[in-house]
Amino acid sequence: MLVVMSRNASQDEIETAVAKIESMGLKPHVIPGSIRTAIGITGNTGPIEPGILEGMPGVRDVIRVTKPYKLVSREMKKEDTRIEVGNVAIGGASFVVIAGPCAVESESQAFQIAEKVKAAGATLFRGGAFKPRTSPYSFQGLGEEGLKILQKIREEFDLPVVTEAIDVESVGLVEQYADVIQVGARNMQNFSLLKRVGRSSRPVLLKRGMSATVEELLMSAEYILSEGNYRVILCERGVRTFADHTRNTLDLSAVPAVKELSHLPILADPSHGTGKRDKVLPMALAGMAAGADGLMIEVHIDPERALSDGPQSLYPDQFVRLMESLRRLALALDKTLA
Amino acid sequence: MLVVMSRNASQDEIETAVAKIESMGLKPHVIPGSIRTAIGITGNTGPIEPGILEGMPGVRDVIRVTKPYKLVSREMKKEDTRIEVGNVAIGGASFVVIAGPCAVESESQAFQIAEKVKAAGATLFRGGAFKPRTSPYSFQGLGEEGLKILQKIREEFDLPVVTEAIDVESVGLVEQYADVIQVGARNMQNFSLLKRVGRSSRPVLLKRGMSATVEELLMSAEYILSEGNYRVILCERGVRTFADHTRNTLDLSAVPAVKELSHLPILADPSHGTGKRDKVLPMALAGMAAGADGLMIEVHIDPERALSDGPQSLYPDQFVRLMESLRRLALALDKTLA
Amino acid sequence: MLVVMSRNASQDEIETAVAKIESMGLKPHVIPGSIRTAIGITGNTGPIEPGILEGMPGVRDVIRVTKPYKLVSREMKKEDTRIEVGNVAIGGASFVVIAGPCAVESESQAFQIAEKVKAAGATLFRGGAFKPRTSPYSFQGLGEEGLKILQKIREEFDLPVVTEAIDVESVGLVEQYADVIQVGARNMQNFSLLKRVGRSSRPVLLKRGMSATVEELLMSAEYILSEGNYRVILCERGVRTFADHTRNTLDLSAVPAVKELSHLPILADPSHGTGKRDKVLPMALAGMAAGADGLMIEVHIDPERALSDGPQSLYPDQFVRLMESLRRLALALDKTLA
Amino acid sequence: MLVVMSRNASQDEIETAVAKIESMGLKPHVIPGSIRTAIGITGNTGPIEPGILEGMPGVRDVIRVTKPYKLVSREMKKEDTRIEVGNVAIGGASFVVIAGPCAVESESQAFQIAEKVKAAGATLFRGGAFKPRTSPYSFQGLGEEGLKILQKIREEFDLPVVTEAIDVESVGLVEQYADVIQVGARNMQNFSLLKRVGRSSRPVLLKRGMSATVEELLMSAEYILSEGNYRVILCERGVRTFADHTRNTLDLSAVPAVKELSHLPILADPSHGTGKRDKVLPMALAGMAAGADGLMIEVHIDPERALSDGPQSLYPDQFVRLMESLRRLALALDKTLA
Repeated sequence: MLVVMSRNASQDEIETAVAKIESMGLKPHVIPGSIRTAIGITGNTGPIEPGILEGMPGVRDVIRVTKPYKLVSREMKKEDTRIEVGNVAIGGASFVVIAGPCAVESESQAFQIAEKVKAAGATLFRGGAFKPRTSPYSFQGLGEEGLKILQKIREEFDLPVVTEAIDVESVGLVEQYADVIQVGARNMQNFSLLKRVGRSSRPVLLKRGMSATVEELLMSAEYILSEGNYRVILCERGVRTFADHTRNTLDLSAVPAVKELSHLPILADPSHGTGKRDKVLPMALAGMAAGADGLMIEVHIDPERALSDGPQSLYPDQFVRLMESLRRLALALDKTLA
Repeated sequence: MLVVMSRNASQDEIETAVAKIESMGLKPHVIPGSIRTAIGITGNTGPIEPGILEGMPGVRDVIRVTKPYKLVSREMKKEDTRIEVGNVAIGGASFVVIAGPCAVESESQAFQIAEKVKAAGATLFRGGAFKPRTSPYSFQGLGEEGLKILQKIREEFDLPVVTEAIDVESVGLVEQYADVIQVGARNMQNFSLLKRVGRSSRPVLLKRGMSATVEELLMSAEYILSEGNYRVILCERGVRTFADHTRNTLDLSAVPAVKELSHLPILADPSHGTGKRDKVLPMALAGMAAGADGLMIEVHIDPERALSDGPQSLYPDQFVRLMESLRRLALALDKTLA
Repeated sequence: MLVVMSRNASQDEIETAVAKIESMGLKPHVIPGSIRTAIGITGNTGPIEPGILEGMPGVRDVIRVTKPYKLVSREMKKEDTRIEVGNVAIGGASFVVIAGPCAVESESQAFQIAEKVKAAGATLFRGGAFKPRTSPYSFQGLGEEGLKILQKIREEFDLPVVTEAIDVESVGLVEQYADVIQVGARNMQNFSLLKRVGRSSRPVLLKRGMSATVEELLMSAEYILSEGNYRVILCERGVRTFADHTRNTLDLSAVPAVKELSHLPILADPSHGTGKRDKVLPMALAGMAAGADGLMIEVHIDPERALSDGPQSLYPDQFVRLMESLRRLALALDKTLA
Repeated sequence: MLVVMSRNASQDEIETAVAKIESMGLKPHVIPGSIRTAIGITGNTGPIEPGILEGMPGVRDVIRVTKPYKLVSREMKKEDTRIEVGNVAIGGASFVVIAGPCAVESESQAFQIAEKVKAAGATLFRGGAFKPRTSPYSFQGLGEEGLKILQKIREEFDLPVVTEAIDVESVGLVEQYADVIQVGARNMQNFSLLKRVGRSSRPVLLKRGMSATVEELLMSAEYILSEGNYRVILCERGVRTFADHTRNTLDLSAVPAVKELSHLPILADPSHGTGKRDKVLPMALAGMAAGADGLMIEVHIDPERALSDGPQSLYPDQFVRLMESLRRLALALDKTLA
């Protein structure tokens, strides 16, 4: 259910409506818009009688939401959501590029890569400190030490950092050091983790699961919003199919599909989406052309010796060329590289 | 690396080998067999020099393990693993049937179902107290109250109970009340949860993820064994494909594939695997014929009003007929219904 | 549209109804049943006004068929279709085993295999004379020479033979020599071929396409029936998924799905369905338990030197053991091995 | 095997080499290049002894081809293949747009659409006269009447036309009227049809099958080239996956994958690739950005009443906007709209 306030509803009227909703045992979500404020309602088990709310002062309309997700839907909020991270805005007209290694391996490795990607124009830095690995015997990340390196990178290069929290336990540490908390593809339906980051004050970058439908992706985002954190960035990173020329099948049509159904920004990750260095550039350009709000790109100074995902990491000079191509393409698409 | 002791190696010799392995900074896993003892070694980042161990008293052989998983592999342990739960053994010649509702909804609902499935011959009872749900607005289970109902069922009907832990936090409660901890398909690669149940004293039922390969399933089991819990039961429950005549595609060939690669028992879940009541019986029989060590079957007294997964739950009398068919089939396959 | 005649409708009344349907520019398909006759109607582009037919003598009922397929549906014909091939019946209570090499390579190879599979109890012989191959440079079959070898096998061993027609051109030759014309998975939607075999007097074995839904399989069968050939045998042979432990994913749930929707018999092909010799036996048993009307099994005397599909061909003694297991299983399932 | 002639090899020397290859019972394929000529060799069942050819006058090098496909591979021919159709070249720096209805429904319908797409800048016209349909009861196309309409369109609007041949029988008619023969996704492995169009003098547009790997697509193209027709244009049109927000999953990474492995041009078809009108524009731009040599776009003047594929057909004004966006994008990508 969505309560749409009139354009000139007073703060008082909004608060009265909120109190009324709470008194009905429901949960109000105030969604300020540029023109008017709306209040999403969750927590109901069956349909709500709209009559009680319709007659209240300042209330213009009470609308039933027909999708299984509510807070993330365009029905609830027409305008694109813009999420500010430091000086950067994700969503809307700007286009962000998040770049860095799959995993933070050492201060020296991370600093060298950060210097290169910053110079080439990356807007945010990525690097895993906690790594979810298929094998218990693979490198599992540097943990808090990695987070400290990321903090230094933010300070040294003025780059906001994105890093993954792999479980409820690690969220506390990650939100202490990082600007954006990533929830990985394997955790897209780790509902306890979603609820926990839903109570964080940090924006969340939520990656699509390997065999998740677009609706399931939006439902997982809904978990985060329903806990009060409205700053969610989605990310298409490839799905698992029979096709074997790439590691995953990058499903770029998810970008316009999400844009139609939801107001949340969505990025494309051609590095995981293809798993092959020489496919990253064409699929990055394709991602921008399909309408994504930005890209996640893996870059490594020495991919052959990377502790994870080497084959899909760009060499720094490939990343420079990618940024140049993106800049040209952005002009043709009326986008601004952040 | 696997250290195979000679048939008549003394307890002392085994302990000396274990101590030697630990002194090398590695982790020994003692695997007693009916004829001889083997010691699996994990924790190495590169290859280990076999020479040091080969010459030790009581050591017959030192073998390199070629699979990415070690402790779960047949290379490490030739004989089928049998896991005892109460009076029941899972694995080997016996065939178990775990039956019950998708979710514990009330004491009355659970008791009525338990009575029916016990009478029909079920060996264990299943029922979710914590439910991972795609939507944050769906019924999320009764939590600890549900676990208490399960405990009463065990006492009243002498049925060991299986129930899911959906996150690290809930494991403590679940292991307090349940006989077997289930890790669901969506959590198959929730590595923190795998490590936590790897430190539990309860057996773990690990379901295959929706788009997991058999190798990934075994790697996830390896996470649990590598923490010291060797009592893992695998479960095929259908994978996600384009096919739309069933909810998932039950991939029964995973059963012989697992049997070839691993010593762990594997069950089939035709309820989730098909999502349709009228496909459960034929696919349950097919699961037994394919060599599964048992089945997980959803049964509900009132499927139309079930709070989750109603369309795939059998009516009690359908379950009675299923058990009769299984009994006849077991004879032809030299299996014993536990 | 389906016209159901009354139990005691005379032949005259049936013919009058047929004539009436033809006079409306539509195509009648007379479907004799054990109790009453029905007449399927195809050829309409929109709905037909039932009134005209309802009042005719001998007509009991006029029913709209709601599925996109008509002639193949259970709505049209409730009883299982039995298809007689020589002395063998496919469908109903009997269970057939079609065995032989992937391709006929020489008279000596085919005869040796035929002798083995006949002795072990196979009901029909299979062997490709025309082979659809992914590469233009692979062995494409012996052509008519292969068909002549198959004819000799039928005469020598009293085994009806099944062989593939790969295009409209080859149907004429194939129907001259073979008892059953196979349409392969790659040709499941070769509609010109379907129409052509629909005008043949031979039964057709139609294999499910690699990414065909069950509905599409039934629609392809409908093409054959709509041309007048009602003797169609379906076959599940595995679909293409991400799973890599088998060559294809044998989707046995297609068996009960087809049984529910259609009166046509359906076989399972665990050889193509798994692509691995050691998975054939368990999946063959699973196919029988799932309710299939028979199996297609590849057997070769020298699989290592087979010109195609060697890795999935059974050794003759494996086939003997398979037949023994099937015989035991059949007893438990009230089936009779044909 | 590939015989590379020296830059200044005479026509005589080339013919001598060809004759030598033929005398060895093999099939030579002369591939003229801008700098030198190469001769592909097929027809060998095992490896060829290179010695005999290496010593011949004018022969610079004899190279073993390591891929299962030969004539289509980059190993065989480094430069991109350009295929001339009327005044249009497909492949290389130019970018083509093939537009028109799914099916030719009438002269009036086809002419109205042709006028619109020509005015908007389409380079070729598409329209089906023979339609492969899942159901035998769906509109199957106008047949030769449709081909005649296409011929008139070419004359009236100076637009080369592309239309599908659905079987060997229809190729003769199609090549009489059309400029490019299309082989549809369902026929990608109809090897008889591939061989037949391989003997045509018309270029062939070969669409990727619904569950075909990139290697299988190239092998199917190899069938055509091996018969002597080197003018093959590939087309990515979406593959079948679990994803349900689009009709198929448009796998744009197939574009750079094909470009790496083969010299043949490849188009993208976002109409079939998404099945939804509002996804066509973003995915068309993405296709161009990913490096495709052109697009196939379905346009209809009255999609609601289209006899097939209405929901994915653009309205004419949407096509105008698409062409404008493509023109801007082409500038940024150094492409020229043909």
